[in-house]
Amino acid sequence: MTRFRLTIEYDGRPYMGWQRQSHGPSVQQAIEEAALRITGAQATVYAAGRTDAGVHALAMAAHVDIDREIAPFRLREGLNALLRPQPIAILDCETVADDWHARFSCLGRAYLYRIVNRRPPLTLDEGKAWRIPRALDVAAMHAAAQRLVGRHDFTTFRSVHCQSASPIKTLDRLDVRREGDVVLVEAAARSFLHHQVRSMVGCLAFVGQGKWSAADLQAALDAQDRAALGFNAPPDGLYFVEALY
Amino acid sequence: MTRFRLTIEYDGRPYMGWQRQSHGPSVQQAIEEAALRITGAQATVYAAGRTDAGVHALAMAAHVDIDREIAPFRLREGLNALLRPQPIAILDCETVADDWHARFSCLGRAYLYRIVNRRPPLTLDEGKAWRIPRALDVAAMHAAAQRLVGRHDFTTFRSVHCQSASPIKTLDRLDVRREGDVVLVEAAARSFLHHQVRSMVGCLAFVGQGKWSAADLQAALDAQDRAALGFNAPPDGLYFVEALY
Repeated sequence: MTRFRLTIEYDGRPYMGWQRQSHGPSVQQAIEEAALRITGAQATVYAAGRTDAGVHALAMAAHVDIDREIAPFRLREGLNALLRPQPIAILDCETVADDWHARFSCLGRAYLYRIVNRRPPLTLDEGKAWRIPRALDVAAMHAAAQRLVGRHDFTTFRSVHCQSASPIKTLDRLDVRREGDVVLVEAAARSFLHHQVRSMVGCLAFVGQGKWSAADLQAALDAQDRAALGFNAPPDGLYFVEALY
Repeated sequence: MTRFRLTIEYDGRPYMGWQRQSHGPSVQQAIEEAALRITGAQATVYAAGRTDAGVHALAMAAHVDIDREIAPFRLREGLNALLRPQPIAILDCETVADDWHARFSCLGRAYLYRIVNRRPPLTLDEGKAWRIPRALDVAAMHAAAQRLVGRHDFTTFRSVHCQSASPIKTLDRLDVRREGDVVLVEAAARSFLHHQVRSMVGCLAFVGQGKWSAADLQAALDAQDRAALGFNAPPDGLYFVEALY
């Protein structure tokens, strides 16, 4: 048995999310089916993060155990060939120690959220960004975001479907910056609650539009109540960008 | 009669190109049909550049004459509403003088060509970049590109369908640079021949892969013969980015 670490890029739009579901296609299922065709054996692919429906990945980390002699390069090429024409690509494939685990060995996760701050509809970015027509005050968003950095009870920013044992997480970084009409939010933490990044971005968008002050964001955090959430941002703009080990 | 200048973004994939065609959808037709529904009158939309099938625009310049009182903002909003769900957006709309012409007043045009230089297939960039697996020598590409800058007979880099009166054009700029695994080619000129940018990029890709030297590119230019062309790059990576007036 050899354990392979995979680095995966995907367009999340056609999928119910990373995780295998009975009611629709998933990224995990697509890769597992491709692996089955190469090895002839069922294998589970474990990922660092379980992205939601419509959420993308630029470099998801995952691993799979293969019971056959195969060079990492050949495995990558085979998976990519069999995944065609699905928008999933294995960017990198390497052997790792048998106790290396994409999810449990992961020391940090980073997400990027892309907002296109303009009134006209999206064309090339359709499904790949959240369009907000009203001009965003990015300095106010970044300043308010710092209220969320650190160790907090993030119940307000947690989906009711979240399976995490505790709502207490340490957010290492939440930066907001502008590049032309694109506003980028970068979030990093050891781990996130379900919907945490989208919920934080939704509330930061309230701040950027002047609907909320930084104090309102603080009050939402302090409420430790999902009902205090301002807005849950759509999946379109969210990208899993890095897993640290 | 009021003349409006439009700045247009579009994803070229669903279209036969900018120009109205009898055998398939075009960007021009889509905008003209939306204008007809707003004004009740047929109107022709003229553009600075007639992009090919599958070629995109980040800021195509165009104009249209409207025989009805309408504020530029309302015209933009109306066109965008009627263009939905097509991937065409009017980014900007303003009134201009009656003798301002998107095509004939244009003093310069700029294109961007995006190459993704990696072996794995494209996912999020599918249809929006040209993937080249072999590592590209970008410094060699940029150096060779300078052979094409200036006033030349570009017959080698001209489609047989080109309707330009002369194959002699002045290329003002052809820059090649790398950003991670993305290689960007920027081209600027008063005007271009049909397929000129794609043909130049195709040959520069030969240089980047070591199939051609700068001297080979020079020889292709000097041949003034379409048969001397190395390769015509696919439309996927090409973007019309700017029209100067």
